[in-house]
Amino acid sequence: MDNLIEKTIKSEEIFSGRIISLHLQDVELPNGKQSKREIIKHPGAVAVIAVTDDNKVVMVEQYRKALERTIVEIPAGKLEKGEEPEICARRELEEETGYVCSSLELVTSFYTSPGFADEIVHVYLAKGLIKKEDAASLDEDEFVNLEEISLDEAKEYITNQKIFDAKTIFAVQYLQLQEALKHK
Amino acid sequence: MDNLIEKTIKSEEIFSGRIISLHLQDVELPNGKQSKREIIKHPGAVAVIAVTDDNKVVMVEQYRKALERTIVEIPAGKLEKGEEPEICARRELEEETGYVCSSLELVTSFYTSPGFADEIVHVYLAKGLIKKEDAASLDEDEFVNLEEISLDEAKEYITNQKIFDAKTIFAVQYLQLQEALKHK
Repeated sequence: MDNLIEKTIKSEEIFSGRIISLHLQDVELPNGKQSKREIIKHPGAVAVIAVTDDNKVVMVEQYRKALERTIVEIPAGKLEKGEEPEICARRELEEETGYVCSSLELVTSFYTSPGFADEIVHVYLAKGLIKKEDAASLDEDEFVNLEEISLDEAKEYITNQKIFDAKTIFAVQYLQLQEALKHK
Repeated sequence: MDNLIEKTIKSEEIFSGRIISLHLQDVELPNGKQSKREIIKHPGAVAVIAVTDDNKVVMVEQYRKALERTIVEIPAGKLEKGEEPEICARRELEEETGYVCSSLELVTSFYTSPGFADEIVHVYLAKGLIKKEDAASLDEDEFVNLEEISLDEAKEYITNQKIFDAKTIFAVQYLQLQEALKHK
């Protein structure tokens, strides 16, 4: 709706890093008053709900410096400049898990934190997984532990807060919903 | 797992704003090498899946400067300093929608962007909604349009990308799952 628009009066880049940049903006509100907005720009990312033929969900455990702890997540990674999300999804799946897939479909895309960031995550469903012997591997400075767990174990991981992030909790709920719809 | 930990060697605050702060960290990787981390600190937030007695989901449309567009979201807001999430959920629900609720339960909590931010969102389910005539109202500089839509309309909104953020897509899927489980 047009009546909600915030016009940019001034935008200043405070920081530009390897992954994110921070912008401080002066905006004009719908009532004519001014306010400030703190905005993070991010290249966007993909995440992959990868299900093996024996119905295990492929997860990676990794240390998240922002949280100062490890969490268990579905495989994911940032888009490289100009990279198609589907290509990125296949690349990240192979690099983080060693799997290639015969079927890959987009489930949904969402902005993770619209209040302050433009990060978008494209979530894919990968099936027909085949372990590749000579899989493209991780950057030598990336460290993850691979886990393959059942849907029930994944729900338990959420209860125990080992799974604790939006895209992975969404993914587990997505699989629960498919399961529930199948048995209807 | 201990083998994944990244030790902080140095942490520098680059920016501290009204809502977020940005920290640049030098870390030691598990292989002994060094790397840099760009970290956003955020106070955390709540979001409320509010369902009316006639089964409509309460949504708010608002302009998101980070996206330069309006999107339709479940009511949500940042935690104030020291504020209990449940108190915050009741406050935001009333301020953004004019509703108070007789029942409020925590559905889940998740980190929105663990790759670069510590923002956590606590998602509540509110039922027994009553419109309050003298509801606490929004800050005069906050602008939202209220919508009450069916679950089918909400699914359509996702298809049309009017609903486009993680917490709201999670919320719609949560209601779909409850519906599917009820009919099993």
